[in-house]
Formats: sequence, C-alpha cells, structure tokens
Amino acid sequence: MKIDFILPSEIEKRSFEIISEELSKMGISIPEEQEPITKRVIHTSADFDYASTMTYSDGAIARAKELIKNGAHIVTDTNMALSGINKKKLAEYGGQVHCFMADEDVAKEAKERQVTRATVSMERAAALDVPVIFAIGNAPTALIQLHEMMESGKFTPEFVIGVPVGFVNVVAAKELFLNSNVPFIINKGRKGGSNIAAAIVNAILYNIDK
Amino acid sequence: MKIDFILPSEIEKRSFEIISEELSKMGISIPEEQEPITKRVIHTSADFDYASTMTYSDGAIARAKELIKNGAHIVTDTNMALSGINKKKLAEYGGQVHCFMADEDVAKEAKERQVTRATVSMERAAALDVPVIFAIGNAPTALIQLHEMMESGKFTPEFVIGVPVGFVNVVAAKELFLNSNVPFIINKGRKGGSNIAAAIVNAILYNIDK
Repeated sequence: MKIDFILPSEIEKRSFEIISEELSKMGISIPEEQEPITKRVIHTSADFDYASTMTYSDGAIARAKELIKNGAHIVTDTNMALSGINKKKLAEYGGQVHCFMADEDVAKEAKERQVTRATVSMERAAALDVPVIFAIGNAPTALIQLHEMMESGKFTPEFVIGVPVGFVNVVAAKELFLNSNVPFIINKGRKGGSNIAAAIVNAILYNIDK
Repeated sequence: MKIDFILPSEIEKRSFEIISEELSKMGISIPEEQEPITKRVIHTSADFDYASTMTYSDGAIARAKELIKNGAHIVTDTNMALSGINKKKLAEYGGQVHCFMADEDVAKEAKERQVTRATVSMERAAALDVPVIFAIGNAPTALIQLHEMMESGKFTPEFVIGVPVGFVNVVAAKELFLNSNVPFIINKGRKGGSNIAAAIVNAILYNIDK
C-alpha cells in the first residue's frame, strides 16, 4: 500500500471527501445541517456507525451556534475533551471550557458528601453565571445528575451534548435526554467518548457562520 | 430502560465483565497477555472491531512494561492523548509524557524548513536522552517520519504504539511498522485515535506487575 504525498492541510479535505463518497455508496444521506457535525465525528473515529446513531433535537445545531455566539461556556466531564476543544476559536465569542471533574476540591467535597464527583461537578457547572453547553463524553453519572437537577426544578441546562461511552448506564442516561425538552446532540447506544464530544463542539465552532 | 445504581468504582469492573461476556458470545478469544490492553481499548470506544484489528509484535507487552519500569518516557502526537495518559502512575517509574506537536517553536521550525510539525516533533523526540515509547494516535505523518529516520539510520524507536485514525495514509503508515523490527502495538486499518493511544498506555501501566 502506497503513501500519498499530500499536504497536512489537504488531508482533512480529502478525508471528508472520502467520508462523503463512502456514505453515498452506503446509501446514507444525512440532513444538510447535521452533515458537518456527523462527518467530523466519523472523521475522528473512522466509524461509520455514527451516521445512523447521531441524534439531534429539532433545530439543535442552530441553537448551539446561537448560544456560542452569545458567549455560552462549555462544561465537559474530562480533561481529554477539554484538551481537544478548540479553545482559541471558542474564545473569539467570549466562551471558555471548564472541567471540574479532576479538581481536588471537587473530589474532597464528593467524598465528604458521599456523592459522585460528577454530581459535584454538575452542581458547580449549574452555578456558573453564564449559559452553559454541557459536553459529556465519559460519565453517564453526569447526565443522570443533570437530569435529576431538572426533575427537581433546581436547574435546566441550555444544551446537552450527550456522548458518554460505555457498557453500564450509558444507554439509559442518554435516553433520559432523548425524552426531554432540552436541546441536544446525542449519540444513541454505547458509543461516544471524550474525542467525540470534542469533535462535536469543534464542528459547531468551525461551521458557526454557515 | 432502567438506571442501575452502581458505584463509579464498580462501573469499570462490571464493564470489563460485560466486554468479556460479549467477546465470549462472539466466539472471540484474545491471547491472555493482550487481553487487558485490547479490552481497555474496547472499554474506551465501545467498539468490538478492535478485538480483531489490534496487533502486537511478539513479546510486545512484556517489552513495553520493561521499558516503562526502566524509566522510559512516552512521546505522543496530541495533547488529548497526553491529557488522557495517567502521568502520576507513569511518574512512579520515572517516566514523563511529552507532546511537541503544538509547541510554538516546533510550528516555527516546521514552517522555516517547509516540513510538517510531525517531522520536527519526531526529531525532538529522537533527541531525548532516554528510551522512548511513541504513542501515535493522530498523525500518520509522525509514523512515516519515524520510519524514514529508521531507514536512513538516524534513529530507531524503542517501541511504537501506532494507532492514528483516519482516511488518508493511515493504513499505509501502520503497515510500515507491521513489517519492521521495532516492537509495536498497532491497530490495523483506519480506526484508532488519541483516546485509543492513551487507553493502551494506561492498560500497560495498570497491568505492569501482572
């Protein structure tokens, strides 16, 4: 198998062309608005399963763009996702990315109260004085906690990107939001991850004016 | 679908049990030494394809453990992978994780010399005064550059974890190492990623004394 000499700047363009060609061969068509997001997720994972599991609430992408343009912050549940999100681009609109999960005082408070770190982290996020887009790529507990806060009337998130990955409570935690009134982008099923959460946020940022 | 009340500390254990059960149902058996690594990759991605594409050179895992125990450093190609690797655990053996790709002076030098940032990054890694395990989750160019340095006799890596993801040059770049004498852990095909690279390093660390 040969190596093509191709500029790094051209690789992404060619990759998206290949993804489009293969989706077309598979007879899969993605709604136009969703295309840049779902394709970037496939670009990040080389996994075409996402074409059929990525799920968007009505008008979700327009809403996410509007929130970011108005300075919304992103709260994520792993430092890997925080690391992968284009913070420079987000900052152009006044936004920042937060991850409270690995903070020492979050761990301490969680231990004292005998709750999960995800619980404390989501409470801290809810206390931020700005609109927040939650980008959850790892902890189903974070989604479950957000949902409990909604149910109890304490807090309603502006937007949820729900793509935790895994085998325990992941599918169920996503379903809580699929049946809610919160605008969402969710990957149904077990798949997802910090890389997927970052890819979704970046895809929204890169297409914010389209 | 119901939410199981399960302690976060128990979720990982239960997840690995589910992975084992499902692999068994699929009739897939993984060599004992490779099991903790391949299963952690599946745990990270919820993607059972990895069971058939993860490829190990003879004695690779024992060699990687030996390198880490002797203080080898890890060089990776994304800050996401750097963020995901358990640096505290690695430091117990004297190791550190480096990622040169996003350094400003690497970008500057790459521009001046009209080469890729991956090229400059791999040169910097080769100049480290310690044995290095390369954990490449994103840039096929990094693998290609490493291979060129080997071919020209400039440098031979001690170990390569080659799991870049994507559609252009990724499969070919991995094949360069599948046919080399360098000890490797490679995921054949298009799949991989920064999260996969971090999962492999962590699985080695978590099982280092087994």
